[in-house]
Amino acid sequence: MSDARRYFDLSSPFAMKRGGSLVGARLAYETWGTLSAARDNAILILTGLSPSAHATSNADDPTPGWWEEMIGAGKPIDTDRWFVICANTLGSCKGSTGPADIDPATGAMYRLDFPELTLEDAANASHELVRGLGIETLACLLGNSMGGMTALAYLVLHPGSARNHISISTAPQAQPFAIAIRSLQREAIRLDPNWKSGHYDDEHYPEAGMSIARKLGVITYRSAMEWVGRFARIRLDSEQREEEPFAVEFQIESYLAGHARRFVRSFDPNSYLYLSRASDWFDLAEHAGGNVAAALARIDVEHALVIGVSTDILFPLPQQEQIAEGLRAAGAEVDFVALDSPQGHDAFLVDIERFGAAIARFLRAR
Amino acid sequence: MSDARRYFDLSSPFAMKRGGSLVGARLAYETWGTLSAARDNAILILTGLSPSAHATSNADDPTPGWWEEMIGAGKPIDTDRWFVICANTLGSCKGSTGPADIDPATGAMYRLDFPELTLEDAANASHELVRGLGIETLACLLGNSMGGMTALAYLVLHPGSARNHISISTAPQAQPFAIAIRSLQREAIRLDPNWKSGHYDDEHYPEAGMSIARKLGVITYRSAMEWVGRFARIRLDSEQREEEPFAVEFQIESYLAGHARRFVRSFDPNSYLYLSRASDWFDLAEHAGGNVAAALARIDVEHALVIGVSTDILFPLPQQEQIAEGLRAAGAEVDFVALDSPQGHDAFLVDIERFGAAIARFLRAR
Repeated sequence: MSDARRYFDLSSPFAMKRGGSLVGARLAYETWGTLSAARDNAILILTGLSPSAHATSNADDPTPGWWEEMIGAGKPIDTDRWFVICANTLGSCKGSTGPADIDPATGAMYRLDFPELTLEDAANASHELVRGLGIETLACLLGNSMGGMTALAYLVLHPGSARNHISISTAPQAQPFAIAIRSLQREAIRLDPNWKSGHYDDEHYPEAGMSIARKLGVITYRSAMEWVGRFARIRLDSEQREEEPFAVEFQIESYLAGHARRFVRSFDPNSYLYLSRASDWFDLAEHAGGNVAAALARIDVEHALVIGVSTDILFPLPQQEQIAEGLRAAGAEVDFVALDSPQGHDAFLVDIERFGAAIARFLRAR
Repeated sequence: MSDARRYFDLSSPFAMKRGGSLVGARLAYETWGTLSAARDNAILILTGLSPSAHATSNADDPTPGWWEEMIGAGKPIDTDRWFVICANTLGSCKGSTGPADIDPATGAMYRLDFPELTLEDAANASHELVRGLGIETLACLLGNSMGGMTALAYLVLHPGSARNHISISTAPQAQPFAIAIRSLQREAIRLDPNWKSGHYDDEHYPEAGMSIARKLGVITYRSAMEWVGRFARIRLDSEQREEEPFAVEFQIESYLAGHARRFVRSFDPNSYLYLSRASDWFDLAEHAGGNVAAALARIDVEHALVIGVSTDILFPLPQQEQIAEGLRAAGAEVDFVALDSPQGHDAFLVDIERFGAAIARFLRAR
């Protein structure tokens, strides 16, 4: 399969916020569109926990990306005008250096010897990439979900690094409900006897734990309202059912099983644990003496678009309002858009009609 | 420890809705107050998935019950006036016959040979108990959570069995979000290698699976809003933390762990699976050709109180409205009370101030 990924070598050693450093680490990224001569038309996209850098298709990799309908010529993030960069998060397993990579100090996989990872580290790595591409100031920094938290860290740590900001379904700090969910996802993986404190292999793989983690993710990424309309109480045909006791019986269960099946072997469990914990640790307030508003007040962008969804239980609407108010207080001109998409946290991935309209309108005015 | 439990022998064989029957089965129950000479002051309480029949303390068992502040002399359910009965659900493990009991046909524990259990079976068993106590018509049938579903089945299956009804945080049919959560709880137990298709013992016990199931329960029983105020991002003291990788760090995680610890060994995993699946199966519409409203229209009570909580994600408010409207259409005089308790689904257990006021007001007028 063709691959559009490029790799950027981070500074070496790359110092980590909580101690330790990475030697010879790199970020996988993709780009679309053309950087202008003035280098002033770049948009950086920071992703949620699991996506790769392949946000949309291109000549080198025509497979659809995770935001295929959002990015491209004539699309809301219009590559005829913008130079779009998407990076795979530091610590992930989609090309960027993470726990599943070889530790040059030992010649063996890092596994749990990978240094403690924070979203600030992910932000710093992405900032190095942008500078490495010769870009002083981004036209826009866009982050969704975990990537939205990373983007807030990026803007606080690197003042003047972006003229505009798009913040989608994210949080200025992790709240206890989201921590509880993620903690339980990690527990399911850790309690799987095949996890072996990170020393699994392909034959002995924490499949059960990863399956539970993913299903719990999907449950909290979507919304009850959407599922009432979509699945109701529809049952599987008898030939689709397994014989084992308490086997799945309803379509909603089979839908979750399908999501788990597609995810389990395609994402490194240790990487999942590191990124999940980094999300729990994230608290922008740490950058301003424990005060979220004060931390947001340090962010210096001209315009911001903050989008939230009323059915999102993981990153609820009040947290989006908090970001919008904080950026406004910091002097930015802020568009706050509360959407009634039924798809919950995942709406930005699927409700392209509503999200695309808001993003297109914002970017056209820049 | 003293015990206030009594036991009622069900008809034998006791036929089950989906086939099979129980021989020599019984229900554990407790009572408070005095049955009037006219036998017209009885209130039956049907519980959620995990509680025992010990709803409140009494002379034989002074330990606090699970609804201690709600039931008693001068309390919202006033035992000076009412004769209150609480039954442990058929299939549970708190005295009523369930999968952890001995199958008289084999002399061994039922385990997964227990017949398939539905909430209709639980309703029929409770109805036999009431009739066995010499009560023709209940003054009031009260059900909360799973017990609310059982109560709706009871009223449809036994017309004229109750003059009044109190329905709390329940559902006329299981919806996909709740099914997804419960299915995942069952999966956590089933995937635990110690579950062994139901053949665990005290030494090899599905502790990890039960822990995940309980934590997921607690997460969905409470609300994000409550936890922001209660736990915020408070961390454990370093001496409270374990050394293992990815160990719990926040108070919210320790709170969940405490809930799991208290539950895991006190509830039979097979019983949990049976009751959880019975909840998923529940669909009152089955009693009226697939139409919920038509099924509710078969319920014949004079007055009903329907209470829901705006922060309940497991049994959301629209389902309570559906019950209220259905009972109203059936000719009952219905008080619908939507509470803003921050505690989510569990509010009826802890927000005694709001719930108690509504219940006391309703019962005083009867």
